[in-house]
Amino acid sequence: MLEFQKMSEKELQSLKAELTEKFEACKAQGLKLNMARGKPGADQLALSMGMLDALNSKSDMKASDGMDCRNYGEPDGLPEMRQLMGQLMGLPAENVIVGGNSSLNMMFDTVSCAMTHGLAGEKPWCQQGKLKFLCPAPGYDRHFAVTEYFGFELITVPMLSTGPDMDVVEKLTGSDASIKGIWCVPKYANPTGITFSDETVRRFAALKPAAPDFRIFWDNAYCVHELTDTPDVLLNLWEECRKNGNEDLPLFFASTSKITFPGAGIAAMGASEKNLNTLREHYKYQTIGPDKLNQLRHLSFLKNMDGIHAQMQKHRTLIAPKFEAVEKTFQEQLAGKGIAEWTKPNGGYFISVDVLNGCAKRTVALCKEAGVTLTGAGATYPYKKDPNDSNIRVAPTYPPLAEIKAAAELFCLCAQLAACEKLLEKA
Amino acid sequence: MLEFQKMSEKELQSLKAELTEKFEACKAQGLKLNMARGKPGADQLALSMGMLDALNSKSDMKASDGMDCRNYGEPDGLPEMRQLMGQLMGLPAENVIVGGNSSLNMMFDTVSCAMTHGLAGEKPWCQQGKLKFLCPAPGYDRHFAVTEYFGFELITVPMLSTGPDMDVVEKLTGSDASIKGIWCVPKYANPTGITFSDETVRRFAALKPAAPDFRIFWDNAYCVHELTDTPDVLLNLWEECRKNGNEDLPLFFASTSKITFPGAGIAAMGASEKNLNTLREHYKYQTIGPDKLNQLRHLSFLKNMDGIHAQMQKHRTLIAPKFEAVEKTFQEQLAGKGIAEWTKPNGGYFISVDVLNGCAKRTVALCKEAGVTLTGAGATYPYKKDPNDSNIRVAPTYPPLAEIKAAAELFCLCAQLAACEKLLEKA
Repeated sequence: MLEFQKMSEKELQSLKAELTEKFEACKAQGLKLNMARGKPGADQLALSMGMLDALNSKSDMKASDGMDCRNYGEPDGLPEMRQLMGQLMGLPAENVIVGGNSSLNMMFDTVSCAMTHGLAGEKPWCQQGKLKFLCPAPGYDRHFAVTEYFGFELITVPMLSTGPDMDVVEKLTGSDASIKGIWCVPKYANPTGITFSDETVRRFAALKPAAPDFRIFWDNAYCVHELTDTPDVLLNLWEECRKNGNEDLPLFFASTSKITFPGAGIAAMGASEKNLNTLREHYKYQTIGPDKLNQLRHLSFLKNMDGIHAQMQKHRTLIAPKFEAVEKTFQEQLAGKGIAEWTKPNGGYFISVDVLNGCAKRTVALCKEAGVTLTGAGATYPYKKDPNDSNIRVAPTYPPLAEIKAAAELFCLCAQLAACEKLLEKA
Repeated sequence: MLEFQKMSEKELQSLKAELTEKFEACKAQGLKLNMARGKPGADQLALSMGMLDALNSKSDMKASDGMDCRNYGEPDGLPEMRQLMGQLMGLPAENVIVGGNSSLNMMFDTVSCAMTHGLAGEKPWCQQGKLKFLCPAPGYDRHFAVTEYFGFELITVPMLSTGPDMDVVEKLTGSDASIKGIWCVPKYANPTGITFSDETVRRFAALKPAAPDFRIFWDNAYCVHELTDTPDVLLNLWEECRKNGNEDLPLFFASTSKITFPGAGIAAMGASEKNLNTLREHYKYQTIGPDKLNQLRHLSFLKNMDGIHAQMQKHRTLIAPKFEAVEKTFQEQLAGKGIAEWTKPNGGYFISVDVLNGCAKRTVALCKEAGVTLTGAGATYPYKKDPNDSNIRVAPTYPPLAEIKAAAELFCLCAQLAACEKLLEKA
């Protein structure tokens, strides 16, 4: 296997012709696959159909505290749901508020609340002038987008195999009070799949930010989303923060979107009493309270953490083969060519690929031309601008297994074709 | 029957003694009833239990457009749900966005969006200095609270039997660009139960506010919530606004909270394409989209407007007798005494009582002392301050019918006792 960058111009020309022929053949197949978002497949959705029967016209509709879940009330959520979501996030039930069907919504509302009303008794963010937010990249585009929408300057922090570069995080937050937060997906990070190291978590817990209203947005979206028998273990940030008297620093988020139904799951947030009271005040005006019937439905179906782990084992059975098929194809078609590196995550929803610098946009465009939609190149960086035009997020869960191999092969073809084109430009 | 205000001091003293004795006897009964919120009774909740079976593990989970409702996507809501909510609000489906379980949430988010991002291309409200909001009063406390939370100065507009005093509304909005909106419950208003007259609706539709980002918040919470065979008819504000080229002026809201389940219904908003696009942009960052399974569940159960009207007929059967019991008791115990007036609404959830000036707080306190919780006196006015301390909102739906009479009798007793005390103060 020859490395592309060691090829002569003639060899590259010949390879390009060969790849182009294959690409045209591939295009003719008329693929129509979507690997753009971390979207469960139809087989995964089927795993939760039983939940729809769990609550029915014969159910007694009462929470453990006797509350009639059909009526108004209980804005923090059902006690047993707060407990379960707390276990998922690593906090006690009393530090948890249950929301609607979207944890992103709770993150957005938290930022929005800070904008208009402020946190920790400080001035509302919208009255504090130009503010900044730290965005470890590659990262989750929808996180970055929330803070971009609210006018923050997005500061890229390099994402390492241990998590965000903590030297950078400590230096920036320690000196600049206009930095108000950082986005984190601490376990099976979107898209790199890494889990923050114990040292990273400890350094987060010990942060001394210049801004008293700086917050760590700890989106534990993939906390139980394993792909192997040897899951990553994430240190408990809540406990570490408490050791340092820093419990107002982190805000925890999670949901059952990828445990039960993506559009009809349960979201929750966890935080210190002080932070929760700020949010409670906000929610008191914002809503009549969350959908408690869906909470009851989830509790009937999932029951407890054992139930959640059993459900996740079923998901794993369906999606691990998809990840393996992609990795096997990448290994066969891209290894040793010096034009791509990719992650092999122990969990989560993504494979992160770094193609040859300057080739991500072109690779994604070629894939699209042949019928496979990927996350837009650059999306994993603030302002959708990948400085190297190199990172591509691949989401293998949505297409059926039978079609994954074809999609992965097309990806490899396009990555190689784009690399040929780029190297010939320079030649 | 003697009018209280024509009694001598001696007569009042003797009456007060008699009423106090009755009050103590009543207290001894140990009532524990809640008439504070517009909350459906348990018998009403039972009407929708069938909805829980409508969606089950055998359902095909597809919307009319083939969408798998279990997954992400379709942020505006299912096409057939947009249509149904549009029919409820009087707009075409394409002018409707379906939300979560709370229309209050959609109102709050609209105000919040205007605060941080602005409407109609104008500056964000949070950058426009001190702003004002019109609050027809008596009105809905949670409406007023949203704008109070966001720092608006709340301007009281007198509520007439035809709706808000439009002379005042036209004068204020026409000259003051710092006035950004008005709260309306146009049919069976909370709490007075009146429906805006055709002339009021036409004058709303013809408003020429000084502020280009002024909006009418048209919360049609009780649009199909009839109590009689001769329902009030509300003129369609959307159509009237279109006639005047004023379609960007109104924002429509409704929900099924009091059609199916209060905590687990479907909320929606309707507006012009221009307004919806502003909100769509906001929701794009805020959420992964609404719970489409609950939409599907509602569609299976309610089916169409005929289904909704049939369901509302069942509600009416349960709650009309409660309203009648309260009205009958008021008539028997309070009529002709010159100390109270009350509404006889054709629909909605409330009876609005005006007791003797200066007696509302005391009446509510006495009721509470004897075990009946009412909406706090003053709550129907901006800043919870009723200038006359006279208005009390009575919500008869939640207590069982068997206990309504006792609660209403207690109310009459307390209103009379408070009136005696007040008149004796002056004597």
